[in-house]
Amino acid sequence: MVDVIDHKRNGSALTKAEIEFFVKGVTDGSMPDYQTSALLMAIYFNGMENDEQAELAMQMLKSGDQLDLSDIPGIKVDKHSTGGVGDKTSLPLAPMIAALGIPIPMISGRGLGHTGGTLDKLEAIPGFNVELSEAQFKQQVKDINLAIVGATGNIAPADKKIYALRDVTDTVDSIPLIAGSIMSKKIASGTDALVLDVKTGSGAFMKDEDDARDLAKALVGIGQSVGMNCMAVISDMNQPLGRMIGNALEIQETISILKGEGPDDITDLVLTLGSQMVVLAKKADTLETARHMLEGVVADGSALESFRQMVIAQGGNGDVCDDPTIMPQAKYKVELPAQTSGVVAKMTADEIGIAAMLLGGGRQTKDDKLDYAVGLELHKKVGDPVQAGESLLTIYANREELADIKELLYANIEIAAEAKPIKLIHEIIR
Amino acid sequence: MVDVIDHKRNGSALTKAEIEFFVKGVTDGSMPDYQTSALLMAIYFNGMENDEQAELAMQMLKSGDQLDLSDIPGIKVDKHSTGGVGDKTSLPLAPMIAALGIPIPMISGRGLGHTGGTLDKLEAIPGFNVELSEAQFKQQVKDINLAIVGATGNIAPADKKIYALRDVTDTVDSIPLIAGSIMSKKIASGTDALVLDVKTGSGAFMKDEDDARDLAKALVGIGQSVGMNCMAVISDMNQPLGRMIGNALEIQETISILKGEGPDDITDLVLTLGSQMVVLAKKADTLETARHMLEGVVADGSALESFRQMVIAQGGNGDVCDDPTIMPQAKYKVELPAQTSGVVAKMTADEIGIAAMLLGGGRQTKDDKLDYAVGLELHKKVGDPVQAGESLLTIYANREELADIKELLYANIEIAAEAKPIKLIHEIIR
Repeated sequence: MVDVIDHKRNGSALTKAEIEFFVKGVTDGSMPDYQTSALLMAIYFNGMENDEQAELAMQMLKSGDQLDLSDIPGIKVDKHSTGGVGDKTSLPLAPMIAALGIPIPMISGRGLGHTGGTLDKLEAIPGFNVELSEAQFKQQVKDINLAIVGATGNIAPADKKIYALRDVTDTVDSIPLIAGSIMSKKIASGTDALVLDVKTGSGAFMKDEDDARDLAKALVGIGQSVGMNCMAVISDMNQPLGRMIGNALEIQETISILKGEGPDDITDLVLTLGSQMVVLAKKADTLETARHMLEGVVADGSALESFRQMVIAQGGNGDVCDDPTIMPQAKYKVELPAQTSGVVAKMTADEIGIAAMLLGGGRQTKDDKLDYAVGLELHKKVGDPVQAGESLLTIYANREELADIKELLYANIEIAAEAKPIKLIHEIIR
Repeated sequence: MVDVIDHKRNGSALTKAEIEFFVKGVTDGSMPDYQTSALLMAIYFNGMENDEQAELAMQMLKSGDQLDLSDIPGIKVDKHSTGGVGDKTSLPLAPMIAALGIPIPMISGRGLGHTGGTLDKLEAIPGFNVELSEAQFKQQVKDINLAIVGATGNIAPADKKIYALRDVTDTVDSIPLIAGSIMSKKIASGTDALVLDVKTGSGAFMKDEDDARDLAKALVGIGQSVGMNCMAVISDMNQPLGRMIGNALEIQETISILKGEGPDDITDLVLTLGSQMVVLAKKADTLETARHMLEGVVADGSALESFRQMVIAQGGNGDVCDDPTIMPQAKYKVELPAQTSGVVAKMTADEIGIAAMLLGGGRQTKDDKLDYAVGLELHKKVGDPVQAGESLLTIYANREELADIKELLYANIEIAAEAKPIKLIHEIIR
């Protein structure tokens, strides 16, 4: 192992055998943590070449179980986002894709931070069950093209161990390690094609756009190296995405989007990612055709129907599609009036996300319980004109005292004489 | 701790409080090894500033006991070498210094590699005891100005733990870590002045001269930061030092040097380091005067007498000064004839050291027993003319079959049409 560390420390690419040795050692526990962490830090500093990154992902994948979806007919597509504030993109996107007859077996997560993850948001729907057996999961995708569930089985155990160590050794933000972690799990989930949404900006993991581009290229490269049809969109996360931040609130916004009544920014992102997925699934030749098809399933109500089918299939109350108030509702709805007139120049995504978390919408530690009802509804976004006294956003809370939340929000919303809207889609990486 | 790792990983200097937190955590075991190793790797990549290095050494020093030599009158001097093949410099140097009335309380080590360390070499003398109590050690220095012993007590336990981890995480060759390790122990030993011999070349830890210079500067800087009078010599270790390699053989060469009959190269190095020590001890104003004084104690026999006094005081047989054959003698003495005529152009120090180790003169693992008798005696050094058939060196062995040793030696001694002698002293760093 010291030789493996030495090669990486001195800037060499690790061989296939070295990576296999390392990942096997981590998986079976024969590699001491102190050597793993030294290697992780050396990878942080010296990076990895494309082949190495792909091999690392492959070995982490092989450390555990893989889902075999080959008995589900058709090209299975999936989508992954690196996450951000108000990012509920998967929730409207998946039913739109399913409504076009494309199987979308989605394994999703929870998460720490501003709100829960996709699974947490779905659990805001009374009765919704994210824990299906592998057989149930496959059967549901065969039946209605769509299921969104938590990971079952022993997926990439090496990644779990490495991630735990990265967290305590300050080696989380290393692109080859992030890419290996994401892609080992996505390849294990058995999808044929994958669209990646890599966020950049204050509310994103990759604050810097160059880093986001490097990560997107690493992810796409790994996917392609195993024959997966793969592309990435780099999208903005300087301000929250859409208008709703919070678990039930984001389900509510999902339903609006599926009805064609959602905010422009997230609707555009969903259609952009979705048309890429439709093309990867070979259901359309061009992105334009694909986009029209997606607009069609929204307009004719079949996308919302697909969402309703999934909710019902997974034990949830399908009435949520007509009446979102069946989800937990906040006791207090408090407006945040603008203190001056002008144009909204900044809504710092990460800090606004923290406000949502402090309301109870997100977890600070793994064991925190979520309050599904709370969150924020933005009435203004960057580039919007605003009059003093006009509401910038509504706070949905289950506590009366909100001075801390208001102070945090005011400190992170800037109103200036002029400001331009933020461009949402930065780049497409293939 | 993650914050401390993060600061170093991102290239910041660690604060005094951060270094203290880290070293205390290592010492009391509250810092997990995986975090320590991640920090060590970050230090490997991003280095440390002068203040940080000094603070690291100080904190490692404070992790354990310190020797208080204040009741020994006079300016106490010490010498440290980073080590090399045939490096027995301390052995003749210390008695010369002591013969001038300068107290030299020397705490020395053993070691892995080509031969044992200074303590192992002394143990080739029948009866010699390197394990004195602190009181015995001090009394002997008061009585005869000289003692060479192993470390007692709990000296820099943080260094021991960090060193063990560096060894298995490929972070041994980091200059701030090497410097902290050396200087924490030297400061703990209570000396007032210190001369450092930093080796560079194939047989040295620092193969590269720039690295040797950086290390020398780091060592001197740390010493000066605690008010120690400190300087360093950078000396060559591309070929072995002197003519003898092996434990008893190096004691034999030590006695030759003390009689004024030693090889030119090591004699020059001993006088160079020694005159610096005499000046640091304020026994002479200039290096020239100091050198004359040292030549004086060799010429009048008092340096050899000082060595004999130490041997006797530490239970050894003082007759070794007149008859080195009272030490273990090798069964076989085999010459290695030159295969061609020319000039010796290369004697690769590290590989020749390995030959000595394979004969049994050095330890491959900590538990190996040393054979004091074996080793090599070089008759030619780089720059010396040689005739085909003339002996390059004598192999002292306790086994008859020497084909492997001869092959290794031939492979690492080059004879060319011409070659210049190697300059021994490269640079002086203050």
